[in-house]
Amino acid sequence: MNIAVFGTGAVGQIISEKLVELGHTVVIGTRNVADTLARTKPDGFGRPAFGEWHKTHPAVRFDTYDKAAASATIIINATNGSGTLPALAQAHPKNLAGKILLDISNPLDHSQGFPPTLFVSNTDSLAEQIQRTYPDLKVVKSLNTMTAFVMVNPALLAGHHHVFMSGNDPAAKASVKELLSSFGWPLQDIIDLGDITTARGTEQLLPIWIRLWGALKTPIFNFSIALGKAG
Amino acid sequence: MNIAVFGTGAVGQIISEKLVELGHTVVIGTRNVADTLARTKPDGFGRPAFGEWHKTHPAVRFDTYDKAAASATIIINATNGSGTLPALAQAHPKNLAGKILLDISNPLDHSQGFPPTLFVSNTDSLAEQIQRTYPDLKVVKSLNTMTAFVMVNPALLAGHHHVFMSGNDPAAKASVKELLSSFGWPLQDIIDLGDITTARGTEQLLPIWIRLWGALKTPIFNFSIALGKAG
Repeated sequence: MNIAVFGTGAVGQIISEKLVELGHTVVIGTRNVADTLARTKPDGFGRPAFGEWHKTHPAVRFDTYDKAAASATIIINATNGSGTLPALAQAHPKNLAGKILLDISNPLDHSQGFPPTLFVSNTDSLAEQIQRTYPDLKVVKSLNTMTAFVMVNPALLAGHHHVFMSGNDPAAKASVKELLSSFGWPLQDIIDLGDITTARGTEQLLPIWIRLWGALKTPIFNFSIALGKAG
Repeated sequence: MNIAVFGTGAVGQIISEKLVELGHTVVIGTRNVADTLARTKPDGFGRPAFGEWHKTHPAVRFDTYDKAAASATIIINATNGSGTLPALAQAHPKNLAGKILLDISNPLDHSQGFPPTLFVSNTDSLAEQIQRTYPDLKVVKSLNTMTAFVMVNPALLAGHHHVFMSGNDPAAKASVKELLSSFGWPLQDIIDLGDITTARGTEQLLPIWIRLWGALKTPIFNFSIALGKAG
C-alpha cells in the first residue's frame, strides 16, 4: 500500500520503519525538505536528527506534504498536534479528498511548561477539528494513547491491552483495523468507541498518560480494560 | 472509624453499605434531611429512593452535612460533582479542618445532554478546587474512575486492574490506601500519581469511561495498566 506519514519526529520514524518492514511504500511528508534535512541535533529522547535517520532508512521517500499526500491511499498524521492543521493545509484539499487519515497525534500544549495541557478538549477534539475542516477526508483516530514503540509492537507488554478507535466511516475503520492487525494487534484488543466525537475521550487520556509515565518511570505501558469475570 | 458519606445517591448508598459491613460507624450527610427522606422515586438505574433504602439500612445514621462532618474522621465525597462545593460550604470549615476528604466525585455537566462534558478540566480539576477552597482539608482523590460496585468489590473483575490516587498529604494518602485495602484492593494495584494536580488526569478519564460503557454495554469494567514483560 502507498502510505504517507506526516511528521519527521520519533513517532513518524518508528511508524515508517514498521511500515517498510511490512512491505509498504512509505513517503514521509514535511513542510520544507531542505530545512528538515539540515537539522543535525538529536531530539530530547536521544533519537537521531531526521537527516541522520533518513540516511540509514533509504527505502523511505521524503517529500513535501502535498506530494506525499498525492501518492498515498492512507495518510498517517504523526505531527505534533499543533502542527496538524497547518500540515493538512499544505497538503491541499485535492490531495486529501476521499483518503483515510489515521490520526495518531494529540493536542498537547507545551507552552506553559510541565505538565502540558490540551489546546482543545472536553467539548471538542483535534480529530473533530480535522474532520470538520476536511469533510471529504475519512478521519480515524487511533494509537494516540501509547508510546510509538508499543503502537508498532503490542507484544512488548504482558497480557492483553487495548487500542481505541474513533471515526465516522466504517470502511475506513475496517482498513485501519487491518493495519493495526498487521502491527500485531489481536482484533479483540481493538475497541471501536464509535464516531469521531469519541476521540475526545482518547485525547483526554493524555493527562493521565503523562502522570503515569512519571509514576511508573517508563513510557512502556498501555491502558487495558478489565472486564467482569466470565460466568 | 467514624466516616461521613456526603451524597444520598447510588454511590453514597453502595459505599455506606460496604463501610457498615466493615464495622465502621457511618453517617450519610445531606442538605435537608426531611426533603431527602420525602423522595419516593427510584433513580434512573432502578436504585430505591433514599427513604426506602434507609429503612433497610438502619445502621447508617443520616444527618445534615455539618453534623455528619462534625462527628467524622474521614469524609467521603460521593455527591454529584456540581453539588460538591455547596455541600462542603454547608458542612462549615470548622467541621472540615484537619480532616481527610476522600473525593470520589466527578465534575460531570449533564446540562447539554449526552455525552456529559466536564465543568472543570484540563488546567484545573474539581479536586484542586476543593483543596484551594479548604486548605486545611486533606483532599485525596481516588475511586472516581469506576462504577461503585467495582469500587467496593474489585474482585468483580478478572485479573489485575488499578485504582489511582492523587493528593498532597502523604499521611492522608496512607489512610485512604488502608481503606481501599479493606475494600479488597491489593496494595500493588493502587497507583499513587502524585499531588492533587494529578486529579486532572483521573477526572479526564470520565469522557472515555462513558464511551466505553456504551461500547462494552456494561459499567462493570475498569482501567488497568499493562506493563512491559518482565526480563
